[in-house]
Amino acid sequence: MSGPVKMSGVLSPVVTPFKADLSPDPERFVRQCRWLLSQNCGLAVFGTNSEANSLSVDEKIDLLDALVDAGLDTSRMMPGTGACALPDAVRMTAHAVERGCAGVLMLPPFYYKGVSDEGLFRSYSEVIQRVGDPKLRIYLYHIPPVAQVPITLSLIERLLKAYPDTVVGIKDSSGDWSNMEAVLKRFPGFAMFAGNETVLLRNMQNGGAGCISATANINPAAIADLAVNWQAPDARAMQDKMNDLRLAMQEFPMIPALKAAVAHYSGDREWARVRPPLVELSAEQNSALLVELEKRGFEMPGLAEAAAA
Amino acid sequence: MSGPVKMSGVLSPVVTPFKADLSPDPERFVRQCRWLLSQNCGLAVFGTNSEANSLSVDEKIDLLDALVDAGLDTSRMMPGTGACALPDAVRMTAHAVERGCAGVLMLPPFYYKGVSDEGLFRSYSEVIQRVGDPKLRIYLYHIPPVAQVPITLSLIERLLKAYPDTVVGIKDSSGDWSNMEAVLKRFPGFAMFAGNETVLLRNMQNGGAGCISATANINPAAIADLAVNWQAPDARAMQDKMNDLRLAMQEFPMIPALKAAVAHYSGDREWARVRPPLVELSAEQNSALLVELEKRGFEMPGLAEAAAA
Repeated sequence: MSGPVKMSGVLSPVVTPFKADLSPDPERFVRQCRWLLSQNCGLAVFGTNSEANSLSVDEKIDLLDALVDAGLDTSRMMPGTGACALPDAVRMTAHAVERGCAGVLMLPPFYYKGVSDEGLFRSYSEVIQRVGDPKLRIYLYHIPPVAQVPITLSLIERLLKAYPDTVVGIKDSSGDWSNMEAVLKRFPGFAMFAGNETVLLRNMQNGGAGCISATANINPAAIADLAVNWQAPDARAMQDKMNDLRLAMQEFPMIPALKAAVAHYSGDREWARVRPPLVELSAEQNSALLVELEKRGFEMPGLAEAAAA
Repeated sequence: MSGPVKMSGVLSPVVTPFKADLSPDPERFVRQCRWLLSQNCGLAVFGTNSEANSLSVDEKIDLLDALVDAGLDTSRMMPGTGACALPDAVRMTAHAVERGCAGVLMLPPFYYKGVSDEGLFRSYSEVIQRVGDPKLRIYLYHIPPVAQVPITLSLIERLLKAYPDTVVGIKDSSGDWSNMEAVLKRFPGFAMFAGNETVLLRNMQNGGAGCISATANINPAAIADLAVNWQAPDARAMQDKMNDLRLAMQEFPMIPALKAAVAHYSGDREWARVRPPLVELSAEQNSALLVELEKRGFEMPGLAEAAAA
């Protein structure tokens, strides 16, 4: 029996555009995703930076359908499908598989804190069994600073034992290299996506699969380039350059700042909108962000053309 | 213009029964709610102890419809309607108001941490405006140990100023009396429900409205009695007695322990089931729980009859 096909490289947790009434905007979303693919960046739509948990399941299904119906490459799609409620996770996961997505990124249920590995194992197991499709490929989503519910090594071990062809990787957004290293060592072949690009080189050097990072929304080509050319002589310099941009972005609330950058470089102010409980950047923050980006000679090549297409 | 009608007394965050396939069981739910009302206990269905965030919006709507269609008293219903996603919160809240519920208990959106009061104000404000019904009465749900997103005093102040007839109270599950006291002092007439009964007497003595407590699922009459008779000479003794039961319960994972108690005293083992990520009590825990309850001469009067009705 052959092992599962695994995803690799760089994916963007694509920011979600909203219209004036705060409803999702499928046309803008498709154009943005098409641009990201043109930058060699995959589509981890419905991630934390996508405001995915601020969207209903119906809204996410409609947005995913818009991408697939527009002919975008499903082999580069890893939608977020985890949810607090089992039926929501099952419905979203089943839909992603039906539409041909190569993988799904699954948060654990995140309302209850301090839950056991047994409970989390049952959560993933119920989804896998109810979806009941051998094409399902799950990437676990470890993001304790936000979800507060971690994916432990013992949980991974148990899931891998029970579902070796289905549970195939993880996105580690712990910001803790020692955890990433422990996963890489203990589970060779398990696809490790760094949760941000500052540890991308290190991840690739240790057998990792790539990264899924907020800033891949605005800096996709450079990050994707390092994931491919991590053995090149200038890999360290590439890493340093993207770290510098990341640090600049981290001075601002990340999601509104990503959207402000997309709005500015696409020439489309509609992009700046966020859903509550998030708040868009103030005019002062927006100016300060653009100063930081321009200081670095930052560009988003082809975005304005893609946004106007 | 007269002020809004406010709810008071004791409400139970009613535990949700599941069938073997983990689907909600409306018949058992209606019987349990009818029994709670017979104990002078209101219905804060879809609370934390109800595993509400493990239910889809459709499931909650069906369960609420079952209660209303069965003729249960909507003046004692305060369903939880808060959600991470704005459309989910709007849909659930609008439905509760349409069905005549006297109030709703609203969690803030709880996925993103460290969000601003401005963002939370917008979240509540959007729900209120989209529901657009003058009958809506919101009780804010402050439960930082679980939601991790607090309802601050300045947020309450702002909401009260903008929506004085709609935002009428709070459930404070912080476990921090100083916060409850600060809210009681700063917002006279704002309905304060203690998040557990150990501070019920103190809450009533300071002008509070009552409590909404996990253990009201199993000890409703005694807690409701104290909320009514808090000025009686034996109020302190009543408080001490219920504290002792609460302490015993807190030795176990609360939600599975509540369900184990309901299962035992109703004679209906089906009640013990929980949805992942929760896990039911082990046989050992179950035995230890019953020892503690029996040691205290604990009973749930009329439950077995109600469950068999």
